[in-house]
Amino acid sequence: MSGEEGRVEALALDGIPEVVPGDDLGRLIGDAVERTAGLLPLRPDDVIVVTQKIVSKAEGAVVDLTTVEPRPEAVAFAERWDRDPRQIEVVLREARRVVRMEHGVLITETPQGFICANGGVDASNVGPESGNLVTLLPADPDASARAIREAIRTRFGTDVPVIVSDSFGRPWRWGITDVAIGVSGLIPIEDLRGTPDADGRVMKSTIRASADEIASAAELALGKIGGRPVAIVRGAQPLLGEGSIRDGLMPREFDLFP
Amino acid sequence: MSGEEGRVEALALDGIPEVVPGDDLGRLIGDAVERTAGLLPLRPDDVIVVTQKIVSKAEGAVVDLTTVEPRPEAVAFAERWDRDPRQIEVVLREARRVVRMEHGVLITETPQGFICANGGVDASNVGPESGNLVTLLPADPDASARAIREAIRTRFGTDVPVIVSDSFGRPWRWGITDVAIGVSGLIPIEDLRGTPDADGRVMKSTIRASADEIASAAELALGKIGGRPVAIVRGAQPLLGEGSIRDGLMPREFDLFP
Repeated sequence: MSGEEGRVEALALDGIPEVVPGDDLGRLIGDAVERTAGLLPLRPDDVIVVTQKIVSKAEGAVVDLTTVEPRPEAVAFAERWDRDPRQIEVVLREARRVVRMEHGVLITETPQGFICANGGVDASNVGPESGNLVTLLPADPDASARAIREAIRTRFGTDVPVIVSDSFGRPWRWGITDVAIGVSGLIPIEDLRGTPDADGRVMKSTIRASADEIASAAELALGKIGGRPVAIVRGAQPLLGEGSIRDGLMPREFDLFP
Repeated sequence: MSGEEGRVEALALDGIPEVVPGDDLGRLIGDAVERTAGLLPLRPDDVIVVTQKIVSKAEGAVVDLTTVEPRPEAVAFAERWDRDPRQIEVVLREARRVVRMEHGVLITETPQGFICANGGVDASNVGPESGNLVTLLPADPDASARAIREAIRTRFGTDVPVIVSDSFGRPWRWGITDVAIGVSGLIPIEDLRGTPDADGRVMKSTIRASADEIASAAELALGKIGGRPVAIVRGAQPLLGEGSIRDGLMPREFDLFP
């Protein structure tokens, strides 16, 4: 991997095994970094992107649906829209607030402050023969990212920012893209307001969600099949610092779609 | 640039001059491709990403604000929120529908079907000493992409998909990311519903907005300063075909945020 100006590379790490609750993700990712040809030494313009699923699994943020008794509202919604009432129940239990619950779509605000479909509760890829398991979002995704960053810094001596990513939909556009749900070592948005653009004009409202773009670039490398849950993005030059994903959430007073 | 599985690279092209109305973008981009070290030969897994501003400028989709007489509604909104009433007027003229007009934010549905802030009307980076010029969205961004694709295919003999990108905000998240507003030679979303995931479980609702992720990866390479409006993304392996960005828009019946 190179990394000069104007070039960004995303590389999927090989050899992350099936993750189970209690696994030391920092160690597993460090092993995969060592195993991936041409990656070492890590560089300060690298970003490690870790997808939510393995973070939730390692942290035990998993629910066995056979233990869930859905409330009548969940049963009715699930029957009408051909969904699993137990998953709806889990989403409602986790929700700080229901934003929309119609047309088969359940959008909630999570305890972490994300507004997303199904509150980030996810059924696919939880593990072999695990048809009844769903993952919840990590309780504190910034802390999840920080723990991985510290493990990598201790092992390799390089301070590399870490993003925990997840796949979110967006109003008005079809399909999901990967965004950041936790960060450590970078500022997730870059406020370019007041910075002159190429013509010397002062840009009034350019706030760039860099961490989300890095998460999307990582997803392109991780591909469609799964089984490769961690990528390194090199050369994106995010703003380094002790940021939080909370800085990437729209302040409530600007939310025109409550 | 390499391009094996699990690796995606985005490279900003050098040497696109200031674009003016009537410029032949396909030729300018072809020149830049030839000028960029290590890029040729183009590969079938390349995607050319062209940012909206130069497409609009080449096509003459530019309005001189000194010719615009704002309606009273535009004047009142602009005064209240410290904005340019003439730009508000242009957005309202272009709009098929006003989605939100409050808190200084004007979100409209454009004739192309996009729902976005200011209807895609953009004031920054239009050119030196051009404080009164704004760009509109290209009238038919798929056609803009197709013309560039055809010019590249004719010149280099390789059929490379083209994305026209723009920077859009999203509800609930702070900051903008680049998304696709026009495509040629690829399908902007990949419907993975019914495809088994890594555990062999059938995924129910994974529709991936690949073109948007490619646009975001390109933006990371194009960086913050401007002046580099075109990137090549290699290795993303989008679904090839004669797609339209209309396939990437959420059908009206699923729009929970009208």
